[in-house]
Amino acid sequence: METAYRPTHRTTLTRHRERAQYDRSTVHEILDEALICHLGYLSGGRPVVLPTTHARLGETLYLHGSTGGGPLLAAMAANASGSGLPVCVTVTLVDGLVLARAAMHHSVNFRSVVVLGAARVVDDPAEKLRALSCLLDHIRRGRAADCRTPNARELAATGVLALDLAEVSAKVRTGGPVDDPDDTSLPHWAGVVPLNLTAGDPVPADDLDPATPLPAYLR
Amino acid sequence: METAYRPTHRTTLTRHRERAQYDRSTVHEILDEALICHLGYLSGGRPVVLPTTHARLGETLYLHGSTGGGPLLAAMAANASGSGLPVCVTVTLVDGLVLARAAMHHSVNFRSVVVLGAARVVDDPAEKLRALSCLLDHIRRGRAADCRTPNARELAATGVLALDLAEVSAKVRTGGPVDDPDDTSLPHWAGVVPLNLTAGDPVPADDLDPATPLPAYLR
Repeated sequence: METAYRPTHRTTLTRHRERAQYDRSTVHEILDEALICHLGYLSGGRPVVLPTTHARLGETLYLHGSTGGGPLLAAMAANASGSGLPVCVTVTLVDGLVLARAAMHHSVNFRSVVVLGAARVVDDPAEKLRALSCLLDHIRRGRAADCRTPNARELAATGVLALDLAEVSAKVRTGGPVDDPDDTSLPHWAGVVPLNLTAGDPVPADDLDPATPLPAYLR
Repeated sequence: METAYRPTHRTTLTRHRERAQYDRSTVHEILDEALICHLGYLSGGRPVVLPTTHARLGETLYLHGSTGGGPLLAAMAANASGSGLPVCVTVTLVDGLVLARAAMHHSVNFRSVVVLGAARVVDDPAEKLRALSCLLDHIRRGRAADCRTPNARELAATGVLALDLAEVSAKVRTGGPVDDPDDTSLPHWAGVVPLNLTAGDPVPADDLDPATPLPAYLR
C-alpha cells in the first residue's frame, strides 16, 4: 500500500496549499485522536451536517448512527438503489488561537481531515459488532472488552455506516503568527494561546456500586 | 422577537426529540462558545464540509472565508444568479464521554447547533469590517480593538459569508449514563469523563518585543 493518499481534484487545496498533507499516518493520527466528526450528506437536495462519533479500522471509517436517523435512512435508500450515499466526513482538532498584530493574520492552529466518498450501511452482523467494538475503543482503548456486548435487538437498533479511506486529505496549521515585517513593531501582543481538550476526573454514575474500581484505561 | 426559533420539518429531530432545544439564548450561548464551526455546502452536486471560524452578531452568523476558497466561490456564483448558497452550519461542543454498562448506551455529552439557510457574500465594506471585528472578538473579547485594522487590500482579500439565524435547532445531551435496570448490577464502571477545551499559557511570538505586556483579555 502506498504511504500516502493520492490527491484528486477534489482534495487538492485551492488555498494554503502548503498546509495540505496526504500521508496516511498523519490522516490516521488525526482521525484517531478526534472524538467526533461532522458528517455531511444531502437531504432533499440540500446539505446537512451532523455531528457523530467515528472510529477507524485500517482504511475503513465507521460512523455511528441510529436506525431512525437521517443519514442512515438516506444511506439505506441509496444502497437500495445500488449506490453509496455521497458524504463528506470532516474531523477537526483545534490546537491554538493565533493572534497576530494585523487583524488579517489572525488564525487558528488546527489539524483537520476531510474524507469524501460513498457511505454504505453495515448490514453484516459480524462487521457491525466489529465496528461497534472499534467505536467503543475509540472512546477509550480497552472499553469494548469491559462492557456488556449488544444483544440482537440492540444490534438491530444501532446503525453503522462505513466509508473507505480513499479520497482523503489533511490540513494542518502549526506555529506562531506570521505578520508583515512593517507590523512587527506595533504595540499589540502577538503569539499563540494553546488549546487542549482535557479530561477531568471521572464522575461515577449515581447508581454505581461505590466498590467498583476505576478501570486502568480511565486513570 | 419571539424567544425561540420556530421548528421546521427540517429542524424537527427524528431521534432523541427530548434533546432538541429551540430557545434563542441556548442557541446563542453554544454559537458564542464554540471556536469553530463546520460549514456544509454543495460542490459539483456533492456535499463538502469544511471547518472555519464564525461569529454571531444578533441574529446573523458570519463565517470567515478567503476569496479563493470553495465556499466563497460557490456563494458568489449563487449570489450572482440572485440566490443564496444553501448551507448547513453546525457547531458542536463536546462536554463528556458517557460510559454505560451496556455497549449500546455509551454516549457523548454535547451541545450542538445546526443552522440551515442560504448564505450571502458580504460585499458592503462597512458590514465586512463589522463582521471581521466580531470574528476577532469571538477569539477573545477585546482583541478587535487591540490589533491593526485591515487595509483596503486586505479587506478585499478576505471573504465573509452571512447567514440569518432563522431555521435553527440546538441539541443537548447532559448527565450520566442511562442503563437498563437489569444491567446496573454488572461489574463494569459507569459514569462520565468530563471534557473541557482548556487554554494553556499564551506563547509569545518569536519576534515579539519582550516588554509587550500580556493583554487583560488573555490573562
